[in-house]
Order: sequence, then structure tokens, then C-alpha cells
Amino acid sequence: MSVTAAKGFTAAGIAAGIKESGNPDLALVVNTGPRRAAAGVFTSNRVKAAPVLWSEQVLKSAQVSAVVLNSGGANACTGPKGFQDTHATAEKVAEVLGRGAIEVAVCSTGLIGVLLPMDKLLPGVETAAAQLSEHGGEKAAIAIKTTDTVHKTSVVTKDGWTVGGMAKGAGMLAPGLATMLVVLTTDAVVESEVLDEALRAATRTTFDRVDSDGCMSTNDTVLLLASGAAEVTPEYEEFAEAVRAVCDDLGQQLIRDAEGASKDIKVEVVNAASEDDAVEVGRSIARNNLLKCAIHGEDPNWGRVLSAIGTTKAAFEPDRLNVAINGVWVCKNGGVGEDREKVDMRYREVHIVADLAAGSESATIWTNDLTADYVHENSAYSS
Amino acid sequence: MSVTAAKGFTAAGIAAGIKESGNPDLALVVNTGPRRAAAGVFTSNRVKAAPVLWSEQVLKSAQVSAVVLNSGGANACTGPKGFQDTHATAEKVAEVLGRGAIEVAVCSTGLIGVLLPMDKLLPGVETAAAQLSEHGGEKAAIAIKTTDTVHKTSVVTKDGWTVGGMAKGAGMLAPGLATMLVVLTTDAVVESEVLDEALRAATRTTFDRVDSDGCMSTNDTVLLLASGAAEVTPEYEEFAEAVRAVCDDLGQQLIRDAEGASKDIKVEVVNAASEDDAVEVGRSIARNNLLKCAIHGEDPNWGRVLSAIGTTKAAFEPDRLNVAINGVWVCKNGGVGEDREKVDMRYREVHIVADLAAGSESATIWTNDLTADYVHENSAYSS
Repeated sequence: MSVTAAKGFTAAGIAAGIKESGNPDLALVVNTGPRRAAAGVFTSNRVKAAPVLWSEQVLKSAQVSAVVLNSGGANACTGPKGFQDTHATAEKVAEVLGRGAIEVAVCSTGLIGVLLPMDKLLPGVETAAAQLSEHGGEKAAIAIKTTDTVHKTSVVTKDGWTVGGMAKGAGMLAPGLATMLVVLTTDAVVESEVLDEALRAATRTTFDRVDSDGCMSTNDTVLLLASGAAEVTPEYEEFAEAVRAVCDDLGQQLIRDAEGASKDIKVEVVNAASEDDAVEVGRSIARNNLLKCAIHGEDPNWGRVLSAIGTTKAAFEPDRLNVAINGVWVCKNGGVGEDREKVDMRYREVHIVADLAAGSESATIWTNDLTADYVHENSAYSS
Repeated sequence: MSVTAAKGFTAAGIAAGIKESGNPDLALVVNTGPRRAAAGVFTSNRVKAAPVLWSEQVLKSAQVSAVVLNSGGANACTGPKGFQDTHATAEKVAEVLGRGAIEVAVCSTGLIGVLLPMDKLLPGVETAAAQLSEHGGEKAAIAIKTTDTVHKTSVVTKDGWTVGGMAKGAGMLAPGLATMLVVLTTDAVVESEVLDEALRAATRTTFDRVDSDGCMSTNDTVLLLASGAAEVTPEYEEFAEAVRAVCDDLGQQLIRDAEGASKDIKVEVVNAASEDDAVEVGRSIARNNLLKCAIHGEDPNWGRVLSAIGTTKAAFEPDRLNVAINGVWVCKNGGVGEDREKVDMRYREVHIVADLAAGSESATIWTNDLTADYVHENSAYSS
């Protein structure tokens, strides 16, 4: 059900001809109200795509009536013309919906450095608008795919209200945010400030801790739209947890569909002196190409975990470090621990625990293995 | 000629049986004097192998009589026993040479987390000592190879004095230092303080800017030994340049032999506000897996260069960035530049220039492409 699981939203997904393949490439999500509160989180990459620069402005008013998303082109590094194209797209959506352009967020994904085919995109907006439906959520989720092999949706329904969402992302997945477009919707009655707080809290421990390949995109966008159509105002904690649950589920779906991956690796850092230390160590482990190759080869090469920990500034003593791989403590006190032959790595999920023995904080980062398929997928053609 | 190109040095390389393959695995380099000044630079990884911890102590006296190096085992993450083994190795060398153990540096390379077979290593020291020769430099260079496909040596001869050296390193190559063992020798008359200054200046712009796979080792060591046998005291600038030239040559040899690589990539950052900015940007580009895959596929995907630059804190304006690949300015002012079809990427060396348009400083980082062969080599077995 995706973005239309919550009441007060319609959506559509169509093939506008942006992709040469003829696959769906344009999605429209419309908040039919009565409220139009919204919050957004964007890439921390300083090279931001035109749609990110535009949508950041849109979110300043904290009111979003519609989101238009295209795959088949990122509209990044496209200069003033690229920004004009984003603006024209928002104007077109505003025109067909009878709203103001400043209430229309725009998201794009695909190859960097190529202008969008506006002669196809703008007519596509009209076609999509004509197909808007309370059942259009899945089609919208399909239309934003790039190298994704599956479309990603998630829904949490509570007592009279719902949070739902869709996501795309498969490569260039790294924090701040992971490379992706995400639109979340809710029919709960929630003010923009509260949406913002819940969204930032959720992304900090979900999407921001998904790090498939350490590469940060120019287009990452996560939007949360609230229609108020359920006429229910939930408690903050319950609402925030629902948003977090949907984000977590979508983040897991991103990792499971990461380009070329054969393993999903949960890197859990425990007993850190601070949460920041835990995140720094987790990220260092998650980005270690040699370790990611070893995991691909089902080799519990804990020395590569220790060498990754050693590059951080986190508080720890080398001779107190412990590492478990799939439940076997292969490294104890910085040296050889249990027999590495005991480690069973046949399954897709691999669980690494790094015990810093320096405090009581923890954090979990999700990553993938490094495979020949990843190399192939990212070298065989531009993406 | 390697480490025995300079007068006052003997060396040997033998197969002690540490490697199961039976290949050479033990090298000995001896400074026969009359002077024994020395300097060393070690990994900045906080998880340091036992031989690094030992050799750091040795270098405090700034006197080194001999260096014993083994491949076939890193003696890292091996606890107190590992340190005892390093100590025993130094004692053995001291005994056979009639010197003090505190003048014997130890270097190890190979798999982390495995104790060395001391029953083979210690007799090997005696065998190596018996074969010490002024022509032994090449054999020593061969004995320190791990996944290296070729041994690496370099020599610069000036007016009456020489700087020579050997290096190993193929994987886990990243700065501070790149994963490697390097022993440099000179017969010039140079005090330890001057050796130290020249060595740090040289490594800062050579080995520290070699970043094949972003993975930093536990065992990196670069040693510079001076025998004074040439009885010539060179000018500092000339000596420092000779040391830099040998380091640069060896660093280039490391990159050209990096595991699984098919391209050597020179990332040159120009017009940066500071040298630190240039290095930060260069490293970010050099570590971007997606870009490294694209280069492997001979795809001048400059969008991935810009997305890597955007993750840094360096001073720049996104719409003033320029990027050239093999001489073609494919990105101008943050957008589309010259036709990417003009870029010829058929050859092994690829030259990326990132122009930050923010100042006048520059730096060059060398890296490699990311290939299926790299994945294979680092997943098929423990290394």
C-alpha cells in the first residue's frame, strides 16, 4: 500500500519515457488533506542536486501538497538549467493540481550530469495526475526504481492512524543519508515541528546507519507528509516509534537489495565510551573493503575488524578488544579467541559484534559484502 | 641492488619454512658501519603488531644494527606471546651478530592473529646470518613478498653516496602508512635527527599518499639506516631529495602491483585553499568505490568525482568545481563540460584532476581501480 496506506493521499506511477528502457520512471504523491504538514531530511553531500536545493526551500514552509519523483536522471551537476527544469516540474504539478509550486517537492534519481528530457517529463506529469488514485502507492514505488531489483514499501497501522512509505536505493548507499529517495505519509494529525522531530530521530538511527558502499549521493531525500485525514492525534512517543519502524523496515529492504551484494552484515559495536564512538567504529568496520571481501568469501577474518577499529579515534585499549562473528568470539582481549572454524557463515546475514570494553554505549551499522557483481554492476555502464 | 646498493650493508633472504608454500620468507639486513644511525616511521593504526611495538622502542635509541623481516605472518593481535616472539627474534639476531637486541628492528607481514612458527624462524635467523652478503639485497627484497607479484627495489646514487631500498606491499594499502614494509639504506654520513627529518618529509608526500584500498595495516614500517661508509656528508636538501625519490619510486611500484588492480589512478587536486584540503579531497576521491569501479570499466563518470568531493569539509563552491579525466575537462563549473566521449581510458594510468578553484595549493594521491580480481584475491583465502 506504500504511500497511500494512510488516508488523505493519492499516488500514481507511470512511464513518461525518461528511461530509454520504457520502464516506469515518474511518480506523483498528493496530499489531499485536510492538513498538509511536512518534514524533510536531505543529503549532507555538499554537491546537491537541483531537486534537493529546490525541495529544501519547499520544506522551509513546512507545507507540502505533492511530491513528484523521477528515476532515469538525477538532475545533479546540471547547473542553472537543471534548477530551471526542477522549478518547471514543480510548476507543472502545481498547475495540474491547482496548488502553489512552492508546495511541491521534487525528487530525482539516476545518472549525475545529464539534463532531464523535459519534453517527456512535463507531459508525464499530466498523465500521472490523471491516474492519481488511493490505490496508486505501489505503482509510485515501482516508478522510482533505478538499479533496485524490487520496489520497497512499508506500513505500520496503529489505533486509527497509519504511517506508510516507499523507498528506492541500491547503490551509492552511505550515510547522511544513504542514497535513496523515501516518501513517508501519515493520516495522523501531527504538526510540522513534531513531524520534523520524529523524522530526524528516526533517520539518525535507521537510514543514517545503512552504509552499503560508503558512497554518499547528491540526491538523498526523505520526506514525511501528514494529511490529518484520520482525525487522530497520537502520543509523540507512539508516533515517533511508528515512523522509526517504517524507516527501519525500509532501510533493511535497501540493504537486502544492495547492488551485487550476497551478504547483509550487521555491525554491532558494544561497550563503547559514547554513541559517537560506537558509530565511528561501526562505520570504519562497515567500510573496510578487505573485510567486506573476506565476508563475501565466508572467511571470519577478524584481523581485518581489528585493523579497521585501529584507524578510529574511539576510546579503547587494543588488548581489551573482543570480536564475535556469528556468535563465536574469535578475538578475545585483542588476540586469538575461540576457534574460527566454529564460525558458520553460510547464510546471507552476518553478525559482527565489536566489544570496545570502554563503556556502555552501542550502535549498529548495516552494510554489505564486496563482490565481483558489485564491481560488474558499477563498471559495466554509467549509473 | 636494493638495500645493499649503499656501502656498509649486507643482506640475505632465505626460506625458513614460515610460509607453507616453501617460498622465501625471512630477510636480514645488517649495517656493518662504521655508523649506525637510523630513523623509522610506523603505522598510525592504533592496533599495532608486536614487531611495530618493539621496533618503535628500538628506534628511540636512533641506533639500528640490523633489521630482521619475515613474511608469512604479521604477528599482529597475538598478545603477550606475540611480543615475546618478536623479542626472542631480536635476541637471536643480536646473538648471531654479536650486537645488542635493542639495536635490532623487527618487521613482520602476513595474516593477522596467528602466532609465528618460532621453531622455524629462529633457526632461519642463523641460516640467513650465514648467507649475509654485500650482494644479498635482491634476495632480501624477494623474501618479504606476500601477495606481491614482483619484488620492489630502488636506488639513487649521487656524488659518492647512495640511497637504496626495498619494499613490499600489495593489499591493505592506505595511508599512515600504506601497508608495507620498507627498508632504506644509505652510506652517507647523516645523523639520526637528520635521517628522521628527511624520512618524515619523504613519507608524508609519497607513501602517505598511496591509497590503494583505504585499508590501513597493523604492521606498516619504513626504516632508514645510515652506515656512513661513504664518508660523505651531503647537503640536507640533496639528501632529502634522494630519500624522497627512492620513496616515491617504491610507492609507485606498490601501486603498480596492487592486488587485482588493472588501472593506476593519479588523483591530482589543484587550486585548493590548503594542502590539507587537497589531501582530504584527493583521499575522498581515491576511496570512492563507485568511481573506482567506473574507472575499471573505462567510464569517465565524473559525477562520482563530484559526489566524492561533496563529502569533504574542504573549501570550495559546488558551481566552481572543474574535473578533467585524462586531459579532458568533462566537468566545468560544477556541470557538464567537454564531451566525455573524448576521454581515452584504454591505458593503465588514469589521470584525474580536480580543480577546487579555491586557492593555490595542491596534492596528488595515487590509487587503483576496484576490480573483480581484487574481490577474488581478498575473499578466496585469508591474507
